[in-house]
Amino acid sequence: MPAIESPIDGLWAVIPAGGAGTRLWPLSRTSSPKFLHDLTGSGRSLLQETVDRLSPIVEDRFLVVTGAHHRDAVVAQLPGLDPAAVLAEPEPRDSMAAIGIGAALLERRHPGAVMGSVAADHVVADLAAFTEAVRLAADLAAEGWLVTVGIEPTHPSTAFGYIEMGEPLAGHRGAHLAAGFVEKPSVDVAERYLASGSYRWNAGMFVVSPTVLLDLLARWHPDFAERLRELAADPSRIKEVWPSLPRIALDHAVAEPASDLGRVAVVPASIGWEDVGDFDSLAGLLEADLGHLTILGDDDAVNGIDSSGLVVAAGGRVISVVGLDDIVVVDTPDALLVTSRARAQDVKRVVSQLRQDGRSDLT
Amino acid sequence: MPAIESPIDGLWAVIPAGGAGTRLWPLSRTSSPKFLHDLTGSGRSLLQETVDRLSPIVEDRFLVVTGAHHRDAVVAQLPGLDPAAVLAEPEPRDSMAAIGIGAALLERRHPGAVMGSVAADHVVADLAAFTEAVRLAADLAAEGWLVTVGIEPTHPSTAFGYIEMGEPLAGHRGAHLAAGFVEKPSVDVAERYLASGSYRWNAGMFVVSPTVLLDLLARWHPDFAERLRELAADPSRIKEVWPSLPRIALDHAVAEPASDLGRVAVVPASIGWEDVGDFDSLAGLLEADLGHLTILGDDDAVNGIDSSGLVVAAGGRVISVVGLDDIVVVDTPDALLVTSRARAQDVKRVVSQLRQDGRSDLT
Repeated sequence: MPAIESPIDGLWAVIPAGGAGTRLWPLSRTSSPKFLHDLTGSGRSLLQETVDRLSPIVEDRFLVVTGAHHRDAVVAQLPGLDPAAVLAEPEPRDSMAAIGIGAALLERRHPGAVMGSVAADHVVADLAAFTEAVRLAADLAAEGWLVTVGIEPTHPSTAFGYIEMGEPLAGHRGAHLAAGFVEKPSVDVAERYLASGSYRWNAGMFVVSPTVLLDLLARWHPDFAERLRELAADPSRIKEVWPSLPRIALDHAVAEPASDLGRVAVVPASIGWEDVGDFDSLAGLLEADLGHLTILGDDDAVNGIDSSGLVVAAGGRVISVVGLDDIVVVDTPDALLVTSRARAQDVKRVVSQLRQDGRSDLT
Repeated sequence: MPAIESPIDGLWAVIPAGGAGTRLWPLSRTSSPKFLHDLTGSGRSLLQETVDRLSPIVEDRFLVVTGAHHRDAVVAQLPGLDPAAVLAEPEPRDSMAAIGIGAALLERRHPGAVMGSVAADHVVADLAAFTEAVRLAADLAAEGWLVTVGIEPTHPSTAFGYIEMGEPLAGHRGAHLAAGFVEKPSVDVAERYLASGSYRWNAGMFVVSPTVLLDLLARWHPDFAERLRELAADPSRIKEVWPSLPRIALDHAVAEPASDLGRVAVVPASIGWEDVGDFDSLAGLLEADLGHLTILGDDDAVNGIDSSGLVVAAGGRVISVVGLDDIVVVDTPDALLVTSRARAQDVKRVVSQLRQDGRSDLT
C-alpha cells in the first residue's frame, strides 16, 4: 500500500474557484470572494489550503478555473503554480462549464489523465482520510467510473444535497454504486437520511477520466460537449464561445442522469469536511462554542466581556462586545454585520437588500 | 401669574459641563464628552438643548464651567453666548468647585442674583413643567432656601440618589422641606421609596442665592469657600488656586449637611427628565421599544432585518443587523461597541479594560 503522501500518477486537480459566498458578507464579496480569504486563521486562504491539500498527490498538475476579475489575485496567491494553469472565465457559467473546460483541455493535452475536481472554498480537516478517498476514487475513475466522494453526515443538515448509496462495488474497499442524488431535503427527510446510514453529503467532489466526463455530457448535452472540445482545440476563441455555454451545475448536467445509468460510484469518507457556507458554520469550524468569543483577524483589537460567538476583526478598529451569547460581529472598513449564529443564514437577505438599494458596490 | 416663558429677574444659570459619560462609550469620550453630542436626534447637542431650555427665563445670564480642553468646543457650540461666560477649569475638581466658582463670581459681580445650577448633559422633555419648577424654586431661593428640584420617580431606579421630602412649606405651591438625601439604593429600597410617594430623584438641580450657597459651604469647608471668593476677586490666580480645591460633590459638601439643618427645600416636579446615563436610557428616550431598530446618526447607513434596539451610526459605514432584539450597536470611526440594552451599564467595564490595556487614547 503506498504512503498516503505519495503522488497519484496521472491525476490532475481541476479547481473551480468561483462563487461570491454571499452568506459570508461583508467579509466575502463579489470583488473579494470567499476562496481568497483565510477563514481558518491558518495564514492561508481557502484556495491556498485546497492546493496545499492536493499537492502531495498531484504534485504540480493543477488547473484552476476562476473569473477573469479574480485571475490576478489567484495567480498572486499561488506563486508555486505556472500562471498558465490558471484559466480565466470571461463570465461565470456554473460548474459544468468551469470543470468541463478543464476536462477538455486535459483530454487534449494529457491523454489518459484522470481528474479530481475539488471546490476552492471548502475546508478538510483530515488530510489522511481525504487522500485515501481520492486514491480510491482515482482507481475507480481509471476503470471508467464517474466517482464522487460522499461525506459522512455528522448532523441532519438541510443545507446540502445528499447522495444515496446503492450496492457495494466488489473489490473496491467501501465504494458503492451511487443510487441517486437528492436535493437539499427538509429536516424530517434529512433526519431519515441520517438514521438510514446509506446517505452521504454531496460536496461536489468528482474524480473521473476527462473523456468519460465529456462523453457522458455529450449524451444529454451534445452541443455543450462539442463546444468545450472545440475550445480546448483553440483556446483563443474563449470570448466568443464561452457566453454560449449553458449555465448548469455538473450535478444536474451529468452526475444525476449518469447515476440513473449505473455509471456513478460513491466513495464514502469522513474527512472533516466543512463548506464554511455561513458564519455559523465558520464559528463551528473555529470552535466558537466554548463559552468565549472566537476571533478571526486582529486578536488584540477585540475586547469581549461575558460573550460568546464569533468576531471577525478586519476593520482596523477596536471592537468591544458585552454580554451577548452566540453573537456574530463582522467588521470591515466599509461595512459592519451584527447577527447571531442562529440567524447566520439570513445574511444573504442583507446582500439582496443592498443590491435592491443600489449598493452593489458593497456586495 | 406670569407666562411660563417670561424671564425671571436676577436668575442666572450656572451650567457645569463636565464628565466623560463612560457608559456611553465609544460615542462619548474624555476627548468628546456626552454634553457635546446630539443624543436625541434633534440636531442640537445636550449642552445646546440645556441652554435653549433656560434661555426664555435667564435670557443671556449664563455661566458655563467646563474643562479647559473643551472650552473651545463649548464656545463654538454656543455662538449666542459671550465667550467670557464660558469658564475653563484647569482640571476637573467635581461639582462643588465648578458650581462654587460660578457662585463666587456672581456674588461679586451681581449682588442679589439667584443662581440655578443645571447639568449640561441631561434631557428634559416637558419645558413648561421645568420652567414652572424653576420659577417656584427661584422664589424660595430668594427667601434664603437652598432649593433642589426633585424629580418624580417613574420606576424604582437604582442608578440615582433620592431626596426624602419632609413637611410641606406653607404658601409655596407643593414645595417641601427636604428631610434628607440618600445615595443610590438597592432595588428593594428603591421600590419602597417609589411606593411611599415621598421620595424624589436627585437630578443635581439646585437653585440658590450665591451668598447662601457659599455661606453654607463655609460652615463645613471654610477654606474652600474662602478660596472660591479669593478666586472671584482675582480670576488670574486660577491656575495657582484651582488644584488646591477639594474634589467633592455639592451634594456632599453642602446639600446633605444643610438638609440636616432644615435649610433645604425641595420642589417636586414631573418634567420628563432623563440623565441619558447609558445606551439603555438613550434607547428608552428614543423609544427604541417599538419592535424595530432605532437609529441615531446616518439613517440611510443602517439595514435592520427582524431586529430591535438602538444603532448609533457614526462610523461612516453601512451597518446591517439581522435577527437580534434589544441590541445596541455603536459604530464610530475607531471603535465599535456591540451589547444589549440589558447590559448597557457594563459598558464602563470596557472603558476600564481599555485604560488598563494602555488604550486611554480611545476612551
